[in-house]
Amino acid sequence: MSIITLTTDFGLKDHFVGSLKGKLISGLENPVIIDISHNIDLFNTLEASYCIAAAYKNFPKGTIHIIGVDSERTTTTQHIAMQWDDHYFICADNGILSSLIQKKIPQKLVAINIHNRLQDDATDMNVFVAVACHIARGGLLNVIGKEINELKPINELTAQISSDMLTIKGSIIHIDEFGNCVTNISKKIFNETARNRTFTIKFHNKKLERIHDFYSDFKNTDKYSLKSFEGNALCLFNDDGYLEIAIYKSNPKTVGSASTLLGLKFRDVVSIIFNE
Amino acid sequence: MSIITLTTDFGLKDHFVGSLKGKLISGLENPVIIDISHNIDLFNTLEASYCIAAAYKNFPKGTIHIIGVDSERTTTTQHIAMQWDDHYFICADNGILSSLIQKKIPQKLVAINIHNRLQDDATDMNVFVAVACHIARGGLLNVIGKEINELKPINELTAQISSDMLTIKGSIIHIDEFGNCVTNISKKIFNETARNRTFTIKFHNKKLERIHDFYSDFKNTDKYSLKSFEGNALCLFNDDGYLEIAIYKSNPKTVGSASTLLGLKFRDVVSIIFNE
Amino acid sequence: MSIITLTTDFGLKDHFVGSLKGKLISGLENPVIIDISHNIDLFNTLEASYCIAAAYKNFPKGTIHIIGVDSERTTTTQHIAMQWDDHYFICADNGILSSLIQKKIPQKLVAINIHNRLQDDATDMNVFVAVACHIARGGLLNVIGKEINELKPINELTAQISSDMLTIKGSIIHIDEFGNCVTNISKKIFNETARNRTFTIKFHNKKLERIHDFYSDFKNTDKYSLKSFEGNALCLFNDDGYLEIAIYKSNPKTVGSASTLLGLKFRDVVSIIFNE
Repeated sequence: MSIITLTTDFGLKDHFVGSLKGKLISGLENPVIIDISHNIDLFNTLEASYCIAAAYKNFPKGTIHIIGVDSERTTTTQHIAMQWDDHYFICADNGILSSLIQKKIPQKLVAINIHNRLQDDATDMNVFVAVACHIARGGLLNVIGKEINELKPINELTAQISSDMLTIKGSIIHIDEFGNCVTNISKKIFNETARNRTFTIKFHNKKLERIHDFYSDFKNTDKYSLKSFEGNALCLFNDDGYLEIAIYKSNPKTVGSASTLLGLKFRDVVSIIFNE
Repeated sequence: MSIITLTTDFGLKDHFVGSLKGKLISGLENPVIIDISHNIDLFNTLEASYCIAAAYKNFPKGTIHIIGVDSERTTTTQHIAMQWDDHYFICADNGILSSLIQKKIPQKLVAINIHNRLQDDATDMNVFVAVACHIARGGLLNVIGKEINELKPINELTAQISSDMLTIKGSIIHIDEFGNCVTNISKKIFNETARNRTFTIKFHNKKLERIHDFYSDFKNTDKYSLKSFEGNALCLFNDDGYLEIAIYKSNPKTVGSASTLLGLKFRDVVSIIFNE
Repeated sequence: MSIITLTTDFGLKDHFVGSLKGKLISGLENPVIIDISHNIDLFNTLEASYCIAAAYKNFPKGTIHIIGVDSERTTTTQHIAMQWDDHYFICADNGILSSLIQKKIPQKLVAINIHNRLQDDATDMNVFVAVACHIARGGLLNVIGKEINELKPINELTAQISSDMLTIKGSIIHIDEFGNCVTNISKKIFNETARNRTFTIKFHNKKLERIHDFYSDFKNTDKYSLKSFEGNALCLFNDDGYLEIAIYKSNPKTVGSASTLLGLKFRDVVSIIFNE
């Protein structure tokens, strides 16, 4: 049984996703096909990268991840297939995978070179499907591509630790369905830097001095029920291990969210300042 | 083969649903996972309850329903697993299941108590997945939880019959994709009360004196084609057995719908007045 | 293993799609159910037809396609089941299938007549599910319907070739997620008419004199990188073989699209004028 995930910017109104799945089940016997997202902002490789990075770890080893965002092969962008962390990724070399693996070295990396073997009118997705089917059948990557040494480098947002170890400076890299603002500051980098010091988290002209263990982690007492904390700002490490600024029980469509109420936007700076 | 349904407010843009499915297929061999909705209004337990109540009956007995809406475990809200009507439900005790079973007694009801057995950073969904996998493998509920007697009671909207049996007073509990307005007046309660009397259905300052058997149930004649009835208001018992106020061939984005054209909103009163 | 696709206007917020899938897996052992779209514009049979026409070919022969758009059986509209191009289609006779097969003759066409054999409160979807299960089990169409000779004819938009072979006149029949504008001019009709003549493509007061082989098919040189062409208008035959007017790297929500930037709408005329 092969497991294939799909992450695209195709949307859910057109037949595009259905057609892609039709091609996959035409080529493979009984694959398990799971949607990660089809609503990636169009051509937004950074958003696609965040999404696949957060999701892939939840799948079994050997899963094949097809990423159909900005996937056209051009004179400057190759189609690539990569084995990394015992998962397979099929994508254009457009920065999504560079951002995913963060300069670590993949187990195997090839520039796909089967285009001439396919029909003249083969689409980018036909290529990705052919590669996915090949991998699912146990085929080797170097049968469908030429080994290459590295991915196209990208300038991406990464959290920085100051040389005096007093500050971590990160940025908002994702705003989710709940309007929560996810930063690129990981729990790992925080723990390594904090060494039990107290700290202040700053963004715009706001401050938070505590990281919640879970959203409802307020001091509720007989006097103040949990309900009384709805609308309060908080931060916590989210399910994917990234520092997130949230509003308790937010709703972007009604009562507002961290993004709307605190005025936080994509790429805004969030800093953690440690006390000596 | 185990069947698992998902009803959440996670939305379809983020990787949340994909990650949840990844966890399920990592824990179970070849489950059938079916989405009921991931677009429940955020934290809206009433909407979630309507949705799962209407959907679950269409699935085979033994289906496991995971409900990820307002699912954080707090000091006042437990995680629960329930067997009812030969289906399994996994949810926080936040009113969704109380509203579903309407004071009937479940076959089995437990407060989930496996949290200490999971990893420190286990999320609410990790807990629900662990319980779903346990049930799917044929495990008993009292292995993963402590039996409890009742769900948290809720004040919910229910249709009321007047003591003189002359009136049923209900309210709008759901507005669907077509802008149709669904009330909490069931076909069952209507039939038991009506006993073949004629009636008037009232809402705002509007009246309807007939319940359609199906949407296009107009008296179409040589003179008036069905098309001429487009835009007309009507009511009927919908596929789920609830009285619904609709506009024939509505479209909220173009020609309008029952909600927009008749000014009906969530919680608005709809009454049926019977003639002596 | 039976494969069933779903194309509906049910939307993804309500439980409708989940309930439909629940009915299918209750009736069939382990079907593969694939969504083509559930976001067809409400009651829009033309959009549904474009969507299923583009998608079905990507599925294996024998696939069963359920189309739940404007599917109510009325005094003037029958439920039909059709075998065509070795695929099965279940739909109301509302123009969707007429538009799909374009006056070609189906392998088998029946008006479904099992309604009396189902429960009194059977819905249109109950009927479609019963028929799909019958076909999936290898049943014959004339067991569940009465053979008929033809579908309800429709007046639809088709591309026209002028008698002097100098012009193809088509129209926009679909605007996709990217805001690209798809015409009803197929690659086949173009090739048969063009016979290597040069041409001008006209719409509104705009002209294009070249058809791209792929979106990024610009003359990029050392001087002009591909990036410098973002926002340029182009046309090409899309993955489904139809002439499409596009903007390179469009995004309807941010930088704009062919539809918004060129002012193209559904049904707008696009002509190809050939040079002698």
